[in-house]
Formats: sequence, C-alpha cells, structure tokens
Amino acid sequence: MENLTPIHTVGEFELKSRLLRAIETHRSSTILAAGDDAALIQPPVGQQLLLTTDQMVEGVHFDLTYFPLKHLGYKLVTHGISDLAGMNATPSHITVNFALSSKFTLEALDELVAGILYACDDYQVDWVGGDIAPSHSGLILNISAVGFAHQAEIITRKGAQKTDLLCITGDLGGAYAGLSILEREKRIFKEAPSVQPELDGFEYILQKQLRPKARTDFHTILKEWGITPSSMIDVSDSLASEIHQICKSNNVGARVYEERLPMEQIVIDTILDLNLEPTTIALNGGEDYELLFTVPLDQYDHIKNNPHLTIIGHITEAEDGVILESRNGNEHPIQALGWETNEHS
Amino acid sequence: MENLTPIHTVGEFELKSRLLRAIETHRSSTILAAGDDAALIQPPVGQQLLLTTDQMVEGVHFDLTYFPLKHLGYKLVTHGISDLAGMNATPSHITVNFALSSKFTLEALDELVAGILYACDDYQVDWVGGDIAPSHSGLILNISAVGFAHQAEIITRKGAQKTDLLCITGDLGGAYAGLSILEREKRIFKEAPSVQPELDGFEYILQKQLRPKARTDFHTILKEWGITPSSMIDVSDSLASEIHQICKSNNVGARVYEERLPMEQIVIDTILDLNLEPTTIALNGGEDYELLFTVPLDQYDHIKNNPHLTIIGHITEAEDGVILESRNGNEHPIQALGWETNEHS
Repeated sequence: MENLTPIHTVGEFELKSRLLRAIETHRSSTILAAGDDAALIQPPVGQQLLLTTDQMVEGVHFDLTYFPLKHLGYKLVTHGISDLAGMNATPSHITVNFALSSKFTLEALDELVAGILYACDDYQVDWVGGDIAPSHSGLILNISAVGFAHQAEIITRKGAQKTDLLCITGDLGGAYAGLSILEREKRIFKEAPSVQPELDGFEYILQKQLRPKARTDFHTILKEWGITPSSMIDVSDSLASEIHQICKSNNVGARVYEERLPMEQIVIDTILDLNLEPTTIALNGGEDYELLFTVPLDQYDHIKNNPHLTIIGHITEAEDGVILESRNGNEHPIQALGWETNEHS
Repeated sequence: MENLTPIHTVGEFELKSRLLRAIETHRSSTILAAGDDAALIQPPVGQQLLLTTDQMVEGVHFDLTYFPLKHLGYKLVTHGISDLAGMNATPSHITVNFALSSKFTLEALDELVAGILYACDDYQVDWVGGDIAPSHSGLILNISAVGFAHQAEIITRKGAQKTDLLCITGDLGGAYAGLSILEREKRIFKEAPSVQPELDGFEYILQKQLRPKARTDFHTILKEWGITPSSMIDVSDSLASEIHQICKSNNVGARVYEERLPMEQIVIDTILDLNLEPTTIALNGGEDYELLFTVPLDQYDHIKNNPHLTIIGHITEAEDGVILESRNGNEHPIQALGWETNEHS
C-alpha cells in the first residue's frame, strides 16, 4: 500500500487551494471562477437562468466499498446537471461542496476531483466554486448547477394534455442491475476475500451505475427531429415517480404499456438471474438519468421509428389514474416509491 | 412532551411537498420557484450573475443541544448570502439541501424551515429549490445563493494597493463570545440538569452567535457615503484569515493596530471572564459576518469618523508581512488558522 495522507494532516487552506489549482474553465461567460467570495458569470443576453441543486450521501446514494472515487465524481456532475437536461437547457456552471471525514485521504480527494473535472470537460461546464468542511460521518457531496436557455426552448413538467404520447430516451433498469451486481460481489468478497470479483460481461450495466451520462445531448436531437415536447422531466429517481410527477403537475393520468418499456437484454438477463422482475426494476430501479417527456399526437410522424426514443404510453384523464397495462392485458396501478422504503433495508 | 413525528414515518414525497407548500416568493424575477427540475429566473438586463455555495454540518458548525432550529435556519441563510454582500451584490435567490437523520422530526424540520423563510423575508430573497435526503449521522445543511449586480458595482478581493486603508464594518468577537457562553451553559447543564441557564445580559452576543445578520445593507451605505472600496471580503471564517486572503490576492502585506479593533464592552467582558484574550478572539473568533475592505487614501474624508466602519490598519508591501501592532508598540505576525485546529478539540 502506498503512503496515504489523511486530510486532517493538511488543513483547510491547503485543501481549498489544492482544489482551486485543479479548476480550469472552458466558457467565455465565466468572468471569475472559484477563489473569491462568489463566482461571476455573464448571463447570455435574452436568456433565462436555470438553477438546481442536489446531494449525494455516503451509505444512502453510494457505497465507497465498490464505488471508484473518480466515477463518483463523474456521477455527481451527471446527477447535478441532469435536471437541466430535463428542462431542455444546457448546463454551464456548477459548484460542489464536500463534507469529508478526517480519515479521508488527500489521494482519495484527488481522485474525486479528477472525476468531477473529467465530467466538466465532457459536459463543457465550468466548476466555479465550492466548500470543504469536516464531517463526523461519511462523505457528503452537494452540487448546484446553473444553465441558461431561451424561454421558448425551456420545457417544464407542465403542459402534458390528454392523448399526448408518453416517451422516454434510452433504456431502463441498467443502473439498478449494475448496482445489484456490485452488491452481490461485495457480499461474496465479505464471505471470501480471496475470490476475484466477476464483472466480465457486465460492462454496460456497471457503466450505467458507476458512470451514467446526463442526456444533455437530447436538446440537439429534439431540434434535429423537429420534436416539441409538451412536458419533460429527468428520470433520476424512478420512472414510476417521474410519471406521477408529470401527472400531478398537469392533473392528468397515464397509461403505460409493459411491452413498450425499453430494456437491454443484458439488463433483463441480470435482473432475472437475481430473481427480480424486469418490469418492476424498469419502473422503480432509478438512477437511469434518461428523459421522460410527452409529445402531442400531431407530432407522431416525428417520433415513430425514432431511434433516440421509445413511446411507452399516453396521457389519459386524471380519473383514469396512472396505470400499467401488462403484456397479458391486465391493468395495475403504478406506485411512486420514495426513499422511505429503502431507508431501513 | 408533545407528540413528535419522526421523518421516517412520513416519506420522501410528503416531506418534499411539505417544503414546497411552505415556499413563497417575493421577486418578479422568479419565473418558476421550487417544484420543477430547476428554478427559472430572469436575469436583470446588463447585470452579472454571482453564484456562491456553503454548508453547515452538525457537530462542526453548530450544536443542536443549544442551537434553536429557527435560529439555525436564519443563520444558514446569513451564512449563504454573506459572500454576496462581500462582493457588494444583492442576493436574490437561494437553494437549500437538507440531509436529515431518521430521528429528526417533522416538527423540528418545520422550525428549521420557518427560520429559513423568516430570513428570506428579512433579506428579500426567494427560496427556489432544494433537496431532502436521509443522513446516517447528523444534520447537514447546504445553501447556494445567487445575486445580480452591475459589473461596475462588484467589489472583488483583488484591487488592494499599498497605503490603502484597511476597514471593517460593525464589531468583532461577539459570535465567539456568544458561543462560549452557550458551551459553558451546556457543561453546567450536563453536570446539574436542574440548574437554569444564566443568559440574562448576554442578549447581544447570543444574537451575534445564534442569529447573525449578513451585511447586505452595506451596499447602500457605501453609495450614500461615496465610498468605493478597492477590495472587499466577508468575514465568515475569521478576521485573521480574511486579511490573509486579501493580502494573498493582491500580493501585499497589512499592518493592523490592536487598539483599533472594534469590540463591544460586553464582548470584552465575557471573553475576559472566560480567561481568554479579546484581541485573539477578535482576530480568530470567526462567524462575525462583517465586511473587511480596503479604501484608497484619497477617500479618507469619506471614511474618517464614519459611524458604519472602523479603520483598523493599512496595506503594506508584501515583504512586510501581515502584522499586528499591539497597544505597547510590539509587532506580531498574524496567523490564519483553518478548521484543522478545531477538529480535534
């Protein structure tokens, strides 16, 4: 084992200036990045500002036993900016706060920072501020993200109407399948530390769990295909809860067809191997960071056979509820589950 | 004891919608507050955006044994927006993230939220977003703050030059003195729970610790008195470290006169009673949320005998260092201490 440096031997100012040195900026709108009381940004003329914030807590959102810190840094940025993709806006700036236990090492922090910077480069966002504080428990990460967009381009949760088609980008359940494999390998490692983890063939789902991409590219796809969604939301919690959010915001119901839920074969195989039900995972797995949106029927020609999205159902009257129609034609109400159900597991 | 409701009995969505219901907005620039993927804000034409973020961790920044939650909510907002006051900008919007242990009650959360809303009303800022997540340890609060200002009005840390006068708003050491009294009463309570806390006469310093005000008013004072600081920073950490920040940003030194450090009599008395040294506390106590700034000598007429500020010293050459000249004329280097020194106390 190489020599590691616990952060409590370094001190606040050295830690902070180490972070500052790491930060590079890409955008001409960044007048002043980290290093003063606040960052200074020049808003593009005529555009609106979008602001969102999120957090990731060790033991709740990630397990450092198997989560590489560089991936965690990347995922934090994805988590933070996905909300802006969900409004069809381009993220431009982020801030990140770290709460670190004194056992945390400088080398670990460097890995985490490298992951954040890698993501910033990938998404072309500027990291312009943040704070480091001691934590008496594990690692807690907070991210705020800023973006700008013309009012006409912004898509909120509000706007879905009866008969609109319900669509989703990408595929579902991969992040949960990846998590399940990592949890399984952790259990095996605990019982028999000499056994090597078996991760071959799981690259796709591990990537979906450990280094998911925010769909900041979908903005351009919508433009190219001439699609104007009536409402949109990012799927960071779970498909089920996001459908409920759309329905609640618009006082409508929704009907989703089980056979239409897009899932990769490796995801289905992994989930079945773990004795779980693929449809349940597609609906409740979470962390897929895809976009859920509604499209008026008159744009059907733009979305049918479109390789970038799947029509999974349609909007109904509020009194029809939020319903899954299974392959055999049965109807099941879709439940939205929050973290209260996981907290004691 | 009244019936209290632990948050784990309520669930994520109920908690979040409870927060949403609490939020009111004041500003016409707020197009969409909390409730969508991101908040939407209309930037004022021709102004720059300022963005800052901060965190407060239970056991590090506050002790819930004696910190009333409503005050904590207020202080969080002060903590978050003080950085914008430090750049001479008016804060307009905040986001707040909560990480809560499952023992935390709904009633406690309501108190905390009430304090945040009270501060929002006081400072006329809109609370436009946030997240709630479970925490496996204590309470962790994160705040991001946004403000707008014309470029010509913004005052950064950079700009101080040799012979500039070093000035501070308000008075120093009150927050630390208040904290010391609260810590003393906590020790007494632990030893003899029936003894009532003796807090009479300490109102001023308790207020400075428990419900400090950010100097968002100083923007107007500067205008009224025709003062244009060459550099400015808010004093959230400690006067000593903020002086070092100014010196580092400008490659200059500073000379501070002990006799000029503004302290209220109750602060001095309390500190002496606790067998501490008032000057040490003025320099290193922290959390005063005053503003430290430099003013070119040619504005001396605007700042002499000004009731809103005190001249505590002046800027020197970098090689002269950061020096305290004591009452008896001795010179002592001023050290900047970070949280590494408190972490093991």
